Amino acid sequence: MTADAQTFTAARAHARRSAVLATIDALVGWDERTKMPLRAGGWRAEQAAELAAIVHRHRTDPHQGERLAALAAGPLAAGGSPEEQATIRLLKHDFDKQARRPPRLVEELARTTVEAQQAWVTARAASSWSDLEPWIERVFALKREQAACQRPDLDPYDALLDDYEPGGRWRAIAPRFAELRERIVPLVQACAAATRRPDDRLLTERPFPIAAQRAFVREVAARIGFDFDRGRLDSTDHPFCTSLGPDDCRITTRWDERFLPTALYGVLHEAGHGLYDQGLRPEWYGLPPGEAASLGIHESQSRLWENLVGRSRSFWEWCFPLAKQAFPGALADASADRLHQALLVVRPSFIRVEADEVTYNLHIMLRFDLERAVLQGELPVADLPAAWDQRFQQDFGLRPPNAAAGVLQDIHWSAGLIGYFPTYTLGNLYAAQLMEAAGRRLGDLDGQFAAGDFASLLGWLRSEIHAAGRMLESDPLVERATGLPVSADWLAASLRRRYGPAHGL
Amino acid sequence: MTADAQTFTAARAHARRSAVLATIDALVGWDERTKMPLRAGGWRAEQAAELAAIVHRHRTDPHQGERLAALAAGPLAAGGSPEEQATIRLLKHDFDKQARRPPRLVEELARTTVEAQQAWVTARAASSWSDLEPWIERVFALKREQAACQRPDLDPYDALLDDYEPGGRWRAIAPRFAELRERIVPLVQACAAATRRPDDRLLTERPFPIAAQRAFVREVAARIGFDFDRGRLDSTDHPFCTSLGPDDCRITTRWDERFLPTALYGVLHEAGHGLYDQGLRPEWYGLPPGEAASLGIHESQSRLWENLVGRSRSFWEWCFPLAKQAFPGALADASADRLHQALLVVRPSFIRVEADEVTYNLHIMLRFDLERAVLQGELPVADLPAAWDQRFQQDFGLRPPNAAAGVLQDIHWSAGLIGYFPTYTLGNLYAAQLMEAAGRRLGDLDGQFAAGDFASLLGWLRSEIHAAGRMLESDPLVERATGLPVSADWLAASLRRRYGPAHGL
Repeated sequence: MTADAQTFTAARAHARRSAVLATIDALVGWDERTKMPLRAGGWRAEQAAELAAIVHRHRTDPHQGERLAALAAGPLAAGGSPEEQATIRLLKHDFDKQARRPPRLVEELARTTVEAQQAWVTARAASSWSDLEPWIERVFALKREQAACQRPDLDPYDALLDDYEPGGRWRAIAPRFAELRERIVPLVQACAAATRRPDDRLLTERPFPIAAQRAFVREVAARIGFDFDRGRLDSTDHPFCTSLGPDDCRITTRWDERFLPTALYGVLHEAGHGLYDQGLRPEWYGLPPGEAASLGIHESQSRLWENLVGRSRSFWEWCFPLAKQAFPGALADASADRLHQALLVVRPSFIRVEADEVTYNLHIMLRFDLERAVLQGELPVADLPAAWDQRFQQDFGLRPPNAAAGVLQDIHWSAGLIGYFPTYTLGNLYAAQLMEAAGRRLGDLDGQFAAGDFASLLGWLRSEIHAAGRMLESDPLVERATGLPVSADWLAASLRRRYGPAHGL
Repeated sequence: MTADAQTFTAARAHARRSAVLATIDALVGWDERTKMPLRAGGWRAEQAAELAAIVHRHRTDPHQGERLAALAAGPLAAGGSPEEQATIRLLKHDFDKQARRPPRLVEELARTTVEAQQAWVTARAASSWSDLEPWIERVFALKREQAACQRPDLDPYDALLDDYEPGGRWRAIAPRFAELRERIVPLVQACAAATRRPDDRLLTERPFPIAAQRAFVREVAARIGFDFDRGRLDSTDHPFCTSLGPDDCRITTRWDERFLPTALYGVLHEAGHGLYDQGLRPEWYGLPPGEAASLGIHESQSRLWENLVGRSRSFWEWCFPLAKQAFPGALADASADRLHQALLVVRPSFIRVEADEVTYNLHIMLRFDLERAVLQGELPVADLPAAWDQRFQQDFGLRPPNAAAGVLQDIHWSAGLIGYFPTYTLGNLYAAQLMEAAGRRLGDLDGQFAAGDFASLLGWLRSEIHAAGRMLESDPLVERATGLPVSADWLAASLRRRYGPAHGL
């Protein structure tokens, strides 16, 4: 073996060990959110802090920095396999970015965001913006500093976006979002004003026993391809998906006896994330060729299965008999059509996480514009509530009754997650464009869904998206898969086509 | 603060961090045995190996050795509080013992016992002693070496026993066991020959639905005092109890629809362990004043709740109506008396883990005598099967039909657990003696049990046993609690009294 190849082997082993340690941390987090007894939180915080320090120490090991510097100047960086090239380039990118963050700043951000999140809980409960404002001020200041340290070559917003959406640039995203907004605002307002509305009483007035829900959603997740030999489904308060290893993907959900979609669409969403994780290449687990491309691509997978598959008429063609078997009481007098129609209500509302598929993107685009303006110094933190309410009025035709239902509703900014919000709508954009291409490439998808056959769609996503890992950035990846430039058209058209008719449009 | 007090604070913090790391390892183990998906084992092994190395590195940190050496020569070691004195003495004892084990031996033992356990699985399945014999030979040789290194001042068997039963000495245990054996062998043989036998068809011929079992055993565990805000109950194949922190005790069980006692007595046993863990002093968690005294004492707590409480007539006085509510079908024509009688069958059988409470101790004493003879060089490993069968014939009046039902049945020796077996019967001895004293001190326990009131018994165990942590060794601890020297009398008498009459004796 050449010296360069030996260095590559050592760097790869080091990165794999980082992944082993990070997945122990992920297990500790999963357990905390799904299984941990009520009073065990104090000790758990000590375990988490200890592990975070171990993971950080390993990730920033100077020996690894030396290896990556040597590799970047060596023959494999330019002449190795695509996997080797991407591994060298991206491990070095990540290492250098991390190394450029001063330990003092890392520590201060960690401490400040923990305290800010605690302040957020209290402020939201009291609906008191002034209690949170100094914390948001502090977090944005620290994130501005982080942006300047970690990617001095980029605009500050792009420097932060890079943590969630590698290669993403706000100047490319903003016009897409503007176009989308121009088409969604009228659609939402027309739906709100429509005299004909879908009847959703089928889903809101009848009990769906939780035990039956458990069996039902598990069967649905398995049918779309989630491998329960390589994963689990558990209950939690705030659903998430996490991977504890290449063959250990944990999805979670919550249950509402009076509203089946909570668990069903929660599980389809998380299983969509899970299918992506289960489709990454295990031999490259934790290394760029076996990592997700971005949060936007991750979200495209969850939204595709949740919304574009799970809310389709053809899906219910297959799923309705299964649902009727699971809930013979609630669905006695229902039909696939009535159930599908009940899912199509579009209604402007204040809270993002309860929004329907159409208005959801308006929530995101509002946050994207505001957080960017604050970070770039164009909007003072103190003016956020007024700016929020004004934009909300414009887009939704409603004014939030209080700060808790407006600017205080999300934990993201208190947690330091700035540049994270746009990945949700990017995910929707990518999902719609991918689904359109899948339809073109795979023939009669509706016929397949109606027969409960999701294998060709999953196979196509596996080969076009999952297998690429992080070797391409989001836009090039979607463009390669679809043969078309990334555009908001597909999403705008898909929403109009799927939700308009139910409101007589 | 004096320099000595500062060193104590540092040593205590280091030991607490060891406990934090060890409980992360315990979480990884708990998840592996209760939740981990089928195919996740490969990555999990990497996580476990990484953590084991981290825990070992921290535990053997030479700085801690220096602190403990300084403390042992300082004023707190002789003049501090009892907690401080015990902490210094026992942390140093543990550290020095670990430091005396050569890394080469530790590594070789770890590797050999992993391979020996794999060989055991195959050998037991094939019932082929000759496949396992070389591994057992190798394990005993390595354990002899370990004994000589870690406690050169002790007899080799005692040096190993010290890992499980600190302060235990085989010369003190052997006569107790001999006395017990002299009284149990005739009892078992009389039960086997009895013409009158308890009728246990109530428990073996009717289905007890698993969902109802889950709710039922959880209620029983909570009633005896297991705190579900500081613990959980989950399903597994080989039940165990593990603590992931001072307020995070996880008990486990398996379920058999055709045999309620599997889950009920499994849970009472593990909850007994759990009550001990939950009764340790949280502010000293992971340090000697907040650690268990020994495996024997731990087992005394599990056996006391399982057998002396859970199999008593008065327990069923309270529990039967609850059981009847949970299993209205199976128990329609039953009574507290019939159910209690069904639990009293004594029947010699080959497999230790399926044995009744009386014969169980014969299984243990056989292993204690054989493993001691092998370790001390009095019995060649090659002669183990013949020695096993001969002793089995003597004590049980039966001859094992094959090695799988005899010498090959347990994993312990392959796992290097030599000196572990006697703690099971020590636990039974201690439990019987403690229960006798509790009856003397607490008045009408049967009346309390019949009313579903277990609080005064638990309170007494908390103050007499749990609160002492590891500050006393097993014998002195039991003697302090009971006011009597440790003796096999109480166990022998208790077994005779509880099981004899049901067999007309």
